[in-house]
Amino acid sequence: MSKKIEIYDTTLRDGTQSEDVNFTIADKVKIAETLCDFGIRYIEGGWPGSNPRDIGFFREVKKSSVPIDHVAAFGSTRRAKRTCDNDENIQALLEAEVPNLTIFGKTWDLHVTEALKIELEHNLEIINDSIAYLKSKVDRAFYDAEHFFDGFKANKEYALKTIKAAMDAKADCIILCDTNGGTMPLEIAEIIQEVKKLTGDYPLGIHCHNDSDCAVANSVVAVVNGIVQVQGTINGYGERCGNANICSVIPNLQLKYGYECVPADKLSRLRSVSRYINELGNLKHNIHQPYVGRSAFAHKGGVHVSAILKNARTYEHIEPELVGNKQRVLLSDLSGKSNLVYKAKDFGLDIDSNDPKVNSVVDRLKELENKGFQYEGAEASFELLMRKTMGTFTPFFDSISYRVIDEKRSNSDNPMAEATVMIIVGEEQEHTAASGNGPVNALDRAVRKALAKFYPRIADMELVDYKVRILSSGEGTESVTRVLIESKDKDSTWGTVGVAANIVDASYQALMDSIEYKLLKDKERTN
Amino acid sequence: MSKKIEIYDTTLRDGTQSEDVNFTIADKVKIAETLCDFGIRYIEGGWPGSNPRDIGFFREVKKSSVPIDHVAAFGSTRRAKRTCDNDENIQALLEAEVPNLTIFGKTWDLHVTEALKIELEHNLEIINDSIAYLKSKVDRAFYDAEHFFDGFKANKEYALKTIKAAMDAKADCIILCDTNGGTMPLEIAEIIQEVKKLTGDYPLGIHCHNDSDCAVANSVVAVVNGIVQVQGTINGYGERCGNANICSVIPNLQLKYGYECVPADKLSRLRSVSRYINELGNLKHNIHQPYVGRSAFAHKGGVHVSAILKNARTYEHIEPELVGNKQRVLLSDLSGKSNLVYKAKDFGLDIDSNDPKVNSVVDRLKELENKGFQYEGAEASFELLMRKTMGTFTPFFDSISYRVIDEKRSNSDNPMAEATVMIIVGEEQEHTAASGNGPVNALDRAVRKALAKFYPRIADMELVDYKVRILSSGEGTESVTRVLIESKDKDSTWGTVGVAANIVDASYQALMDSIEYKLLKDKERTN
Repeated sequence: MSKKIEIYDTTLRDGTQSEDVNFTIADKVKIAETLCDFGIRYIEGGWPGSNPRDIGFFREVKKSSVPIDHVAAFGSTRRAKRTCDNDENIQALLEAEVPNLTIFGKTWDLHVTEALKIELEHNLEIINDSIAYLKSKVDRAFYDAEHFFDGFKANKEYALKTIKAAMDAKADCIILCDTNGGTMPLEIAEIIQEVKKLTGDYPLGIHCHNDSDCAVANSVVAVVNGIVQVQGTINGYGERCGNANICSVIPNLQLKYGYECVPADKLSRLRSVSRYINELGNLKHNIHQPYVGRSAFAHKGGVHVSAILKNARTYEHIEPELVGNKQRVLLSDLSGKSNLVYKAKDFGLDIDSNDPKVNSVVDRLKELENKGFQYEGAEASFELLMRKTMGTFTPFFDSISYRVIDEKRSNSDNPMAEATVMIIVGEEQEHTAASGNGPVNALDRAVRKALAKFYPRIADMELVDYKVRILSSGEGTESVTRVLIESKDKDSTWGTVGVAANIVDASYQALMDSIEYKLLKDKERTN
Repeated sequence: MSKKIEIYDTTLRDGTQSEDVNFTIADKVKIAETLCDFGIRYIEGGWPGSNPRDIGFFREVKKSSVPIDHVAAFGSTRRAKRTCDNDENIQALLEAEVPNLTIFGKTWDLHVTEALKIELEHNLEIINDSIAYLKSKVDRAFYDAEHFFDGFKANKEYALKTIKAAMDAKADCIILCDTNGGTMPLEIAEIIQEVKKLTGDYPLGIHCHNDSDCAVANSVVAVVNGIVQVQGTINGYGERCGNANICSVIPNLQLKYGYECVPADKLSRLRSVSRYINELGNLKHNIHQPYVGRSAFAHKGGVHVSAILKNARTYEHIEPELVGNKQRVLLSDLSGKSNLVYKAKDFGLDIDSNDPKVNSVVDRLKELENKGFQYEGAEASFELLMRKTMGTFTPFFDSISYRVIDEKRSNSDNPMAEATVMIIVGEEQEHTAASGNGPVNALDRAVRKALAKFYPRIADMELVDYKVRILSSGEGTESVTRVLIESKDKDSTWGTVGVAANIVDASYQALMDSIEYKLLKDKERTN
């Protein structure tokens, strides 16, 4: 039997302190449901009384599928001049009507005397009676010892007295907080060992911030030193540099140490939980995010690729499927023949690594990458390049010429973009024009208009993203422009690339690849 | 005297293994110069022989300001069936003609027998004679013990034998690599303590990957346990989840433990180094990045804000200025006006917050920022906006109209870009045309040609960078394009911004701002 660790998620409270995180009440309820399904023990919904959205959440979550036993609310110890009975903050917590309440109090003597401006002894009474009061009202009262590690370093004796005050009031767990995120992993270990001399087997928790890039490590070190509750957020959302990212803490504890944070059969949902919550927050996925990122198990170097093809363990610390992720192989000038063969397989192309044409693809690839082409994110262009170089591509059309005009007649006018294109399909020539909100949009419309009568399904596709980067090449040459285009139709999404001195020409190349790829896939589907 | 730690940067080699990192040779040289100025001891430039770009770097860096003693090249031990004298990889390393060479070899018995398919004893010979050979040729030979921690866990005795083989050959430092990034911080500490029983005071290094979100912590733990060289990358670039981020490792070691990684007076460049290298890679800054992110010292919550105004230490683990960062109080907590005055001061403009015109600037700014304008990196546009809105700007010219034509007549032709512009200066109208290697270049030339007879000093300026981002705005609206242009003359460098649906129009706006700013500064200088 593996030892259970309680995961206490504060995405909905501390996570929303992040500059770029903002959830509606409906989002917050959906997130709570997702976390609950995933097996998270406690879900902290907010700080009732601090804002209307948090109050709304506690009202709405009761109508959701989340059992109320999983829901926690956050607040602070009572004010110095109030009793718990007439402290608005404490009362607002009770009004949330949830069985788990967490309150924070002061550990650091500096904060007691400078911020609260009260006697040190008085603060101990506040901690003690706030917890005791809540314990008399709800199932569980947790005590967050704010600035615990800084307080301990400043005045160890007093910091331990604050912990004792919460223990005496029978807090269900005492959470040691690295509020400023400045504590180093080995300090965490040493300080917890000191604390445990006082607390013995009393349940302790950890709440880390990532200001020193150590929040995940600190949380893991704390658990190895006997901590039983870990607080953190999905994807590490939080104020400043964020909180401990539970998407990393959970697999570290579960896969490397055998602790149980979520039921074993649910761990493979980790990636989809991480992504879903990013989507709700309209946040970009970090492709490099440990465990769950798109690149977390992506291999680029030729040496690595040939090794993982033999045994994935050689360059993967865990099986990606355990956390719902998967292995990927990337293309680049760093790669050799083995990447190419792997990738070809991905594209459903059966190529023999002994085929001399494979060498010409590798050479052509190196040449193009040296010019500034890049095929990560432009795998459709890569497939076309491979087919064209190996002689397995039949062109759908020939592009003869294009012209784009951008014009603005006066300061108040909107600019006009018009494109004309001439293409040949078989024996037929099409010469047409279209306008757009910019040169690329106009070109895209004109080409698709010209092709529509030959390939009507081209109407399904649309450009969804367009990225431009100027590359300064070596001495003596002009800088070049690299354009990446992402397109989609109802079946899939694909990326293409173009490189040229002229941005319009680079865009046109990427556009032509995108259209050729669409036609190729349509043809394959009907075959 | 604080103890020195050697920082060995591998941004240009291991960093470029990242899926989204791609540098030109010119970028790589600029990065090496920047890192050298920052005080980084070793800069690994690439793997000669693996691709043409790395060879180009070693050629070009010798013409730069980087002393060659700082430059390192990377490769592997010799192949099993070759001697060093006829191993292409080893010879390519020597051809890089740099005094520091790092080679990796196998530690993990599984890799020796499964990947190399040789006897365990044979691998020890390979390590030993590869290092000994390089030591006879160059100043320093470093040994990277690939998969050291995994190898140690699988077969401790053998892993230590590989280290001994490198020691016997007098490697200048033996670097313990957590190649798969799966090792936990306390394991790092325990294993290093075991290794040191064998190696005593022999110099050891650490090279961590971030697959478990612990690379920074692991590097710090290693140093506390006696490691003297830390390998990592700027901003943690690297394959999969990246390498140890030296932008976090350095301040952790230097500010929390008092080790010297870079000269103390250079640490405050950390943020600008991090950002500059992101810019060269066209990578988005991570606002939450520890120490250097824009939000790293940003405070949102009311409790925190009132506390930091009394004493910043209450919610900041270090003084932000030590790493070149600064405290921010987020917009929502500031009145628009004080925010503007704060920003204006940032840009070196002295404005009176009681001036009623300040309110119109605030309104205009909000409107523009909502449209996608961004003034970080476009201070010149901000200054013009402020002057125009406050009525302290006298126009130098009026832009009446422009037209740009991009045309390509056949597949083999180079595309042509031609711009016509009409401007008015005082009473005179100029209508002229120019061609360029793209629409923006053609427009730039045409406008400057038209203005040259009125403002001859306009010939001094040139565009040095051009960046494009597509912003998807809210529901129901079209996406817009944001263009940032960087320009310079012999005195300074400035940035301007333009936003429009049409990329050419956005570019034109940024171009006009750049030219107006140049004329403004020239006028100020002559006054």
